[in-house]
Amino acid sequence: MTNSPFNRLLTAILLFSSLASAQQKKLSGFPDSLANRQLKLEEQFDQHLSSANIGATIKELSSQPHHISSARGKAVAEEIRRRFISYGWDASLVTYQVLFPIPQERVLEMGGAKPYKAVLKEPALPEDATSGQDGQLPTYNCWSPDGDVRGELVFVNYGLPEDYDYLDRLGISVKGKIVIAKYGRSWRGIKPKVAQEHGAIGCLIYSDPKDDGYVSGDVYPKGAFKNEYGVQRGSIMDMVIYPGDPLTPNIGATADAKRISREEATNLLKIPVLPISYHDAAPLLQSLQGPVAPEEWRGGLPFTYHVGPGNAPVHLKLKFDWQIRPCNNVVATLKGSEFPDQWVVRGNHHDAWVNGAADPISGMAALLEEAKAIGELVKQGYRPRRTLVYCAWDGEEPGLLGSTEWVEDHAKELQEKAVVYINSDNNGRGFMNASGSHALETLVNEVGRDITDPQTKVSILDRRLAADAMRAATPKLKKEKLARQTININAMGSGSDYSSFLQHLGVPSLDYGFGGEDAGGEYHSIYDSFDDYRRFKDPTFDYGVALSKTAGHTVLRIANAVNLPFDFRKLYETVNTYATELQEMTNNLRENTAVENQMIAGHKYELATDTAKHLAPPSMKDAVPYIDFSPLQNALAGLDTITQRLSSKKQIVNTAAVNKLIYQAEQQLLNDGGLPNRAWYKHTLYAPGFYTGYGVKTIPGVREAIEQRRWKEADEQIKIVAAAIERLSKYLQTNLL
Amino acid sequence: MTNSPFNRLLTAILLFSSLASAQQKKLSGFPDSLANRQLKLEEQFDQHLSSANIGATIKELSSQPHHISSARGKAVAEEIRRRFISYGWDASLVTYQVLFPIPQERVLEMGGAKPYKAVLKEPALPEDATSGQDGQLPTYNCWSPDGDVRGELVFVNYGLPEDYDYLDRLGISVKGKIVIAKYGRSWRGIKPKVAQEHGAIGCLIYSDPKDDGYVSGDVYPKGAFKNEYGVQRGSIMDMVIYPGDPLTPNIGATADAKRISREEATNLLKIPVLPISYHDAAPLLQSLQGPVAPEEWRGGLPFTYHVGPGNAPVHLKLKFDWQIRPCNNVVATLKGSEFPDQWVVRGNHHDAWVNGAADPISGMAALLEEAKAIGELVKQGYRPRRTLVYCAWDGEEPGLLGSTEWVEDHAKELQEKAVVYINSDNNGRGFMNASGSHALETLVNEVGRDITDPQTKVSILDRRLAADAMRAATPKLKKEKLARQTININAMGSGSDYSSFLQHLGVPSLDYGFGGEDAGGEYHSIYDSFDDYRRFKDPTFDYGVALSKTAGHTVLRIANAVNLPFDFRKLYETVNTYATELQEMTNNLRENTAVENQMIAGHKYELATDTAKHLAPPSMKDAVPYIDFSPLQNALAGLDTITQRLSSKKQIVNTAAVNKLIYQAEQQLLNDGGLPNRAWYKHTLYAPGFYTGYGVKTIPGVREAIEQRRWKEADEQIKIVAAAIERLSKYLQTNLL
Repeated sequence: MTNSPFNRLLTAILLFSSLASAQQKKLSGFPDSLANRQLKLEEQFDQHLSSANIGATIKELSSQPHHISSARGKAVAEEIRRRFISYGWDASLVTYQVLFPIPQERVLEMGGAKPYKAVLKEPALPEDATSGQDGQLPTYNCWSPDGDVRGELVFVNYGLPEDYDYLDRLGISVKGKIVIAKYGRSWRGIKPKVAQEHGAIGCLIYSDPKDDGYVSGDVYPKGAFKNEYGVQRGSIMDMVIYPGDPLTPNIGATADAKRISREEATNLLKIPVLPISYHDAAPLLQSLQGPVAPEEWRGGLPFTYHVGPGNAPVHLKLKFDWQIRPCNNVVATLKGSEFPDQWVVRGNHHDAWVNGAADPISGMAALLEEAKAIGELVKQGYRPRRTLVYCAWDGEEPGLLGSTEWVEDHAKELQEKAVVYINSDNNGRGFMNASGSHALETLVNEVGRDITDPQTKVSILDRRLAADAMRAATPKLKKEKLARQTININAMGSGSDYSSFLQHLGVPSLDYGFGGEDAGGEYHSIYDSFDDYRRFKDPTFDYGVALSKTAGHTVLRIANAVNLPFDFRKLYETVNTYATELQEMTNNLRENTAVENQMIAGHKYELATDTAKHLAPPSMKDAVPYIDFSPLQNALAGLDTITQRLSSKKQIVNTAAVNKLIYQAEQQLLNDGGLPNRAWYKHTLYAPGFYTGYGVKTIPGVREAIEQRRWKEADEQIKIVAAAIERLSKYLQTNLL
Repeated sequence: MTNSPFNRLLTAILLFSSLASAQQKKLSGFPDSLANRQLKLEEQFDQHLSSANIGATIKELSSQPHHISSARGKAVAEEIRRRFISYGWDASLVTYQVLFPIPQERVLEMGGAKPYKAVLKEPALPEDATSGQDGQLPTYNCWSPDGDVRGELVFVNYGLPEDYDYLDRLGISVKGKIVIAKYGRSWRGIKPKVAQEHGAIGCLIYSDPKDDGYVSGDVYPKGAFKNEYGVQRGSIMDMVIYPGDPLTPNIGATADAKRISREEATNLLKIPVLPISYHDAAPLLQSLQGPVAPEEWRGGLPFTYHVGPGNAPVHLKLKFDWQIRPCNNVVATLKGSEFPDQWVVRGNHHDAWVNGAADPISGMAALLEEAKAIGELVKQGYRPRRTLVYCAWDGEEPGLLGSTEWVEDHAKELQEKAVVYINSDNNGRGFMNASGSHALETLVNEVGRDITDPQTKVSILDRRLAADAMRAATPKLKKEKLARQTININAMGSGSDYSSFLQHLGVPSLDYGFGGEDAGGEYHSIYDSFDDYRRFKDPTFDYGVALSKTAGHTVLRIANAVNLPFDFRKLYETVNTYATELQEMTNNLRENTAVENQMIAGHKYELATDTAKHLAPPSMKDAVPYIDFSPLQNALAGLDTITQRLSSKKQIVNTAAVNKLIYQAEQQLLNDGGLPNRAWYKHTLYAPGFYTGYGVKTIPGVREAIEQRRWKEADEQIKIVAAAIERLSKYLQTNLL
């Protein structure tokens, strides 16, 4: 760092912030007498972290393509195990047998006046040393069925349900047609699912340069953004039904597990799906006729987007090798000195679509660096009070296979022993992102308060708070954000390995990562390489260290805590905002429906729409009834009282049994029957959205019932959620007050 | 029209709306006993309007390029005069001598690694019969000085003041450089003005395909939108200082008028300016280096936009033939039977940049059709009670030359005699747009109520109301709009010939046009042709008839009114909303400034901004004081009382003298000293924005002082506006109560 005015300013900020925090810090879970010892331990831990080492790990583990079931994938797992052992941990490979399709044939071609055969291949680049390697998985969407379809093409924007509503208004059906959708807005697996629901026979998903390409910045290798040939691979398993091996829902995919057939697997789609580059998408899109796409649908390619259909037939042929293959998790343990049966579980996946320097190796490298540093502490005589379980998952990319199978296989034991699951995945430069169980929000804030941001030298918490204020949309919201000293952690959807811990078992979970200054287009492409990473993601690997600190401190605080640092008051506050949101959402939906119906009934759509556009008005919708939220409100009132009393309770030293009751409290929020139509998801507060995928829906049973206008189901779900909250209140009252 | 379900629906709507309006209609200005006679007259008028005839007029008058001072321009004026005379009107050419530059040399070239010489030429197209004609003005911005400059290029987004603020934060200066700005957001003349203020030595303005090209729809000739070679010509006179001949501010540009020199003309800029196509802009933009342009700056060309500067030098050379040339207005009159000294003035310009089928001939053809129909009524024995003055202006394109010079030349007479000025300009398919003096809002609503939309068969008012409801952003606003029976007319900025009538003289004014379903990229290009018009603007010419009806009925109602239909209550209501807006704007600015200053002082910009971007925080701004709006509030309270009393006043038949007092009332709102730094603009309520150009600023003295943070000036201007409103109140009380 040079001595620029900016750096002098940062130094001044840093000094000020050090002075401000010179007083005794509060550490939740530790009496003041022990807090300093814990902080000292964390300082020692930090001294064993090396950005250079993290960089070297990223380089080594991403040096070859290493997808699930590849020889190199196995070698990476072995190397990770070897490292854990060298750090002084117990470690072994825990292998499951999972279905995993690998492409054998991929054809996409268009006939008509300007025939085109898609390239379907990302070229090797001299600027990217690993981009020309053997062993790359071709560009494909994993879990597409085999298929050989021909049909007209229709452009469906992002392929969301509302995009099909608009097509209906245009009188355009996708029945018997192939759709082409843009990546973005919804998780990729949702797009073919919705297409299939509407009768499409095939689905192409492409990266539009407006969302992921030259519109955002210079393209690779000049810059970080997606070049014309780049393709986002990825799973299209219908993970919102259940993740993991499709053939073994709810149970571990051990060699001898009872398997269902592929046809029985409700999370597999029926139409062929292929991801393509914008180079390959351009001639297809340009061939489309029919109406000009509405403004919000248009992308960044240099021509006018039409909806279609085109009169040039499109042929999509896909064939896969469907085999059961090994899925090699690595599980490493360090036994707790006092509570060996209370586990602090930490995980990151190790499998990649190709080289995966960012996804997942950047997170994996940070995890290994933590394990190494803890190993060093152990060599100096430290033992965690609780057992540490560090996991490197295989098969995350196709659908959280490794973690889900392990969790399903050890469900009972985890519900007994797992205090927390702390996840990470890809990591980059920028701001701390944290999501998870809201009872852990106070802990996350205290962890963030004590870690310094590598670039600005303020705490990662303060930097996040500054970003939140900057991003607030209005002066009023900015003012509110400026007044805050703590952040809210986000709720968890899906898309990484925490899903089964939290949403299937109710194990309190956290997910950490840094980002926001590492944008690029390498995701799931051959260009997610070390060369890309060191130029555009985290060039100094200092954010790798920051992640090691964030996750590592969290692990160490939970492992050593006298009283487990769960703050149920935060849980109450968060759920209460969700409940308020649901009521506001319902009121807005009611008002909106009434006004829209009035617009439709008054023929305003016909009068205000260009008759040349042949755009029919939308259909009237049933009026939104007033919904009885009182069960939820009463349950929350009860939780309010209990958590207030809990917060003001005089601190005493918990027994092991009481700590266990604390970490098991989240299980009270599970509903045995699971969510409507997806019983695997049992948490009443958090789930991936049925039509958003990765994106979270909080209080999902109620929220999705309302969004999808199933009023009776909303009533039922309100009662279910209320019962869960009442269970929790009673549990807390009985066990902890 | 086929008997489709949609058309049956329209018929049903039509029947219902006819039934609803079968009662006796109120016509402001007419006792009930005379209203039916007036409506009958308007029905007869309508029967003489022919869409085929309007189409033929558009075709004929746009058949050759006919800019000011061209031989064909003169011929068009002569033809218009001939037609007026054939319709039974008195008509003559009223010629002024105005400065008008014509390009002699235009060079734009780039050196460096990829040298480029700009095409600067729109190609002839086989699909457009007039596109290859001789006599086209080349692509240029009129009033650019001669210049021969070389420099680095910087991209300045839309060239707004805030764009330069952002460049400052990036540490990029345009001093000594040539800027390239996108058309849009501000009027084109503002862009070089702001560039010049920041030290640029030249300015290019281009049409980005995101705003005006393939992003919106298929390009010409396949569709209506701007193709890669299309260029928007246009004036860059600093019209917000004063419009009209630059050498004769405030006086008519008669042959012997006392002229100032070009150097003395404060509405002429000092740096060369050239408009270019996106074909010509692309290589220039692609050569730029420096930071990636912020998201909002990026356009629709298929590469990453950088801010610059580029290291390839750009050379811009422009030379013009600066001559004083004839400007031929046509003025036609039909003497009033009862009040010959009360003039109903109606106008549209006839000069075009090239062929100008839409701009201005579509409006001119409607005006001529009105004159023809009125001529027919006259043949059947009708005479208007007041004198009609129908004008066809020359030289509107370069800067409202013909109308401004005529108005300046006849200022005193017009302030005595002009009851109203009713303007139109280009016209197309879609919705009624009306703007003007708010005392005429009730009249406009009554006119719109009685005219049927050609496509939907409801009234043009109801169609406009439906569009307003559709366009409302929130359900709450939609609900409000749905409850409305009347529209608000817009306030007038500039950009057409009403400016001098309203803003210089205080003649009550209106501007009419139809549009919203006629989007395209032909504006000021060679493709604004009859071939384009009949395909994309108003294929049946039915909206030409709708414009004839709208303007014609307005003319006839004002011409025949017993009591001139001015509704000062509407004026009060509108100005009151402006005053409320100004207070809210000031409060928001205060809150926003405080929060931004807090963000800056708390180093949130440094903490939340990617350090790799080298983006300095904005500068702190002075806090916004509390401003004394009470003079304005008190003045409005007075106007409230007076206009309430006026509204409830029992109807009597006005004398000619009282009617004159009515139409002269708007002159009370003039301030002799004019607006700060632009004394030509004397109206205290309406002016084009100093930094927006065409876009209106209401209560401009106060609004712009606040926007530009000149608090003392805001105080002074509040007093000036309050005094004007008090003058009006007193005038109304003394003369009309």
